[in-house]
Order: sequence, then structure tokens, then C-alpha cells
Amino acid sequence: MGGLWFTEKQTDHYGITMKVKRTLHTEQTDFQMLEMVETEEWGNMLLLDGMVMTTVKDEFVYHEMVAHVPLFTHPNPEKVLVVGGGDGGVIREIMKHPSVKKAVLVDIDGKVIEYSKQYLPEIAGELDNERVEVKVGDGFMEIAESENEYDVIMVDSTEPVGPAVNLFTKGFYDGISKALKEDGIFVAQTDNPWFKADLIREVQNDVKEIFPITRLYIANVPTYPSGMWTFTLGSKQHDPLDVADSRFHEIDTKYYTKELHKAAFVLPKFVADLTK
Amino acid sequence: MGGLWFTEKQTDHYGITMKVKRTLHTEQTDFQMLEMVETEEWGNMLLLDGMVMTTVKDEFVYHEMVAHVPLFTHPNPEKVLVVGGGDGGVIREIMKHPSVKKAVLVDIDGKVIEYSKQYLPEIAGELDNERVEVKVGDGFMEIAESENEYDVIMVDSTEPVGPAVNLFTKGFYDGISKALKEDGIFVAQTDNPWFKADLIREVQNDVKEIFPITRLYIANVPTYPSGMWTFTLGSKQHDPLDVADSRFHEIDTKYYTKELHKAAFVLPKFVADLTK
Repeated sequence: MGGLWFTEKQTDHYGITMKVKRTLHTEQTDFQMLEMVETEEWGNMLLLDGMVMTTVKDEFVYHEMVAHVPLFTHPNPEKVLVVGGGDGGVIREIMKHPSVKKAVLVDIDGKVIEYSKQYLPEIAGELDNERVEVKVGDGFMEIAESENEYDVIMVDSTEPVGPAVNLFTKGFYDGISKALKEDGIFVAQTDNPWFKADLIREVQNDVKEIFPITRLYIANVPTYPSGMWTFTLGSKQHDPLDVADSRFHEIDTKYYTKELHKAAFVLPKFVADLTK
Repeated sequence: MGGLWFTEKQTDHYGITMKVKRTLHTEQTDFQMLEMVETEEWGNMLLLDGMVMTTVKDEFVYHEMVAHVPLFTHPNPEKVLVVGGGDGGVIREIMKHPSVKKAVLVDIDGKVIEYSKQYLPEIAGELDNERVEVKVGDGFMEIAESENEYDVIMVDSTEPVGPAVNLFTKGFYDGISKALKEDGIFVAQTDNPWFKADLIREVQNDVKEIFPITRLYIANVPTYPSGMWTFTLGSKQHDPLDVADSRFHEIDTKYYTKELHKAAFVLPKFVADLTK
């Protein structure tokens, strides 16, 4: 097809392929293979262990949908924790909420933060906001050491392989529950329903045992496998489907709207069946 | 990556790639290049001019969403026309509606029908239903020769290149309006909002000039570019967002639900902006 192409095998038998302008940085960090690539179609792109994490062109979908759904569900989120998310995209969206006094980001890999600031400034720019505290460390331990501290916790992790494997366990969700305040909410990315149905079912079952309100919602991320991505939300009191209209405020987004906030929970039948 | 892989460049700079078990049939028809391929991930797959038309694994999304949204919007659809759709998937879904007495399918390429029956029997099986009339011919002419005849018209075409180029013109929508009864509804696939925003905007504007109720809805089709597909619906009287709960009946689907019927019209902000 001419020139250099990057291909991610999203399953053993299918994948996405993109024309590459140039490779910006390649490094085996202490935790994973990190690659920054400039693509023709999607702009600059971060790969971890060969998987697309984020691209400049479509990153807004994932980052907006991780952040705004729980933040608008909570009546007054003041303290927020992000586990993973070293590219800074979720933090950027959180900063659009004036109620948030402090957001803590804990990513295990400082190199992700460093090179995101360098090559993805549109995404990482708010990591330097004075309301943000950036820590390089183990999110699992950060959760284990926190108690009754956060209004909202967001898990912006890689797939459940490599450094993120502990972030898809019931013990982790239990820790999240303890780290949250009595009306706290958490959300985690939980992969796609076309090829990871078992994972979604397991997470739903685990979270349901701990959080009285457990819900699954979806968004279209073109560069992720199948283009349909799921998020699992666990909440102690506040239901994302029962947010007063007055709670929403004007916000600058490209994907999220207050109407989509609710529609994102209306699942195709084969996806809804995973939550039963 | 080992073995034979099929790659569709979905734009000049990005695409989908799939492992191929074997090629079942290849033929330059009078209208287009037709290929039937057995893939590892998606089962048997129909390609026209190198573009994925349908695969056994994900075809249900597109076919259900084309058919059931207009058919449940109409209070009593009896006569239905499908333009294109020679694989038979839309017909199969239409046959799930007992009110439909006759469905006419007009595909310009008889070879699509012939090889779909042979290699995609799960999809094409209802083409032999006694309520179905299959014609090989020009859908544009079929529309032009019909007046006040159909309750619902569905345009299941390829992209607006090659044989389908006339199916994305205002003259065609005008013909559809005349071919429909006074409370008729039509729906057309209108590509994806990530890379075909201009097309969607144009179609919306054209259809709005003819149909008092014009709406856009979306579904996730993993093997189509971006994974997010749009459908434009034009209606003379009945609003798809105002369907009585009693109108819905039990139906065997994997994607469509009566709740999703409405949620599919709640668009991400950048997509909603295309309809303004």
C-alpha cells in the first residue's frame, strides 16, 4: 500500500492498520513498550505494548465519556482520583468541572506522562493545572492506602495484561469502595463486547457484589477494537440514570451531551445480556 | 503476520485487516467486483469493489437497524420496498413483521443475490419467502415508476460510487417521496460521521427539503469504517421518536430493542452538529 503502515492485531484474526508518517519515540520502559507515532489519519498516537492507547483525532470520545458521566452523576465532586491515564486526557476533562478542588493522578509509568507532555500536548496540557497532583506509582497501592477520601475514582487502564492485571480483580473494586466516600462513584474502562464479553460479564458480577448501583455504558472509539467501548460504573448512592436536569452545566465537549449521558446506558441487546 | 490477510483501506490512510481462510468466489460482474471470502474472525464475508458489505458475524446490526426502526415507526406497514440489499439481510428482518404482506427487493446486480444465496444462507434465506418479490433491476427506475405505492422504502446501497451514485441525489429522494403513500417512511444508510461528514450533512439537507420529519440515527458496525454507522430517516407523518409503547411487539433480535429504537437517535455532539 506504499510507505510504512502500523497494524494492531486487535484479535488473533483481525486488526486496524494505519499509515505512519514517522516514529517519534520508542522505548522499553520498566513496565511496557512505549511508542509515539505520527499517523496520517489519526495524528499523533500513543501505543503501549503495541496497542493503541489514544490518538489526537479520536481521543475526545474516551476521555469525555470516562470523566463526565460520573462527574455529572455526583452532585458535588470535589476530590477525584485517576488510576492510570498518564496521557492526561481524563484530567483535562475533569478540569472542566469547577466543583473539583483536587484531582490526583497515579500512573505506574512516569515515561507515559513524560512523553505525553512532549508529543500529545493537546491531551496532556492540564497535567500542570494547580488543582492536579501527579504521582508516579502503583494505583492498586494508592487505592489500598486510601479510606473515605474520594468522591469519584476513574480507572483509565490498559487491557488486563501486563501492569494493569490487578486492576480487573474483585479485591481492587473492594479497595475502591473503601477509598470512596459514602456517596462515591467509580468508573472503569472495560473493553469491548464483541471480543471481550466474558471480561465484561465478570467485571459486572464482581462490581455488583460491592456497589448497589452497577451500570454499563458505551461509546464509539474508532481506533479501539470493534469501535464500541464499554465503561462499568459502580455507585454507592447516586444513579447515573437519575440525574436532575439542573445538575448539568454548560461544558465544552465534542461527544458528551446531557442527553447522551442517559442514552449511552441504553445497550444493544447482545450487550445488555452481558449485564444480567 | 502469517497466512493471507484481506485489507480494506477505509480511507487513504487507515483500514481494517482480517485473516482469510479461503476465497470462495471472485467475479467481475456487469456492475462491480464481487468477492466472497471466508474469514477467521467474521465468518463468510461479501466484498463489492473491495469494500466490506456484510459479514456473518456482525451483519445483524446493520440489517436489524435498517429494518426495524422504520417498520416500528409506521403503524401498519404492509408493502415495503428494498433498494439494493441483494444479500437478503434486510428482507430477513422485514419478514419478522407479520403486518408486511409484500416486500419487493430490487438489486441492480443479480450476481449479488445468486452468490449470497450460495455462500451466505443465514443472511439470504428469506429471499425465497412467498411474501417477497425479488427483481434484478435499477432501483432508481423502480422508484421513478412507482406512485403512492409503498408504506416503507429502505435504501440498502453501497457507497455513493459506482452503481449507487444516483441513490444519493435529491432527485432520488424526490422519487422516493412520490413512491411512498401519504404516511410513508424511508430510510437510507448514510455512511459514517468520522470521514463522511460532508455526505451526511448534504443528505440531511436534501431530505429535509422533501420530508417534514428528517432524522439521523446510529449503530455500531465493527467491520465498517470507524465502527459508527448512520442512517437517515425521512417520514411524511410518523415520528420515530414518538412511537407508542403498544406499537412494539416481541421480536427476535440481537441488537435492536424498543429502548434502543429511541436511544439510537441521541447523537454524540459532533454528529448532532451535522444535522443542524
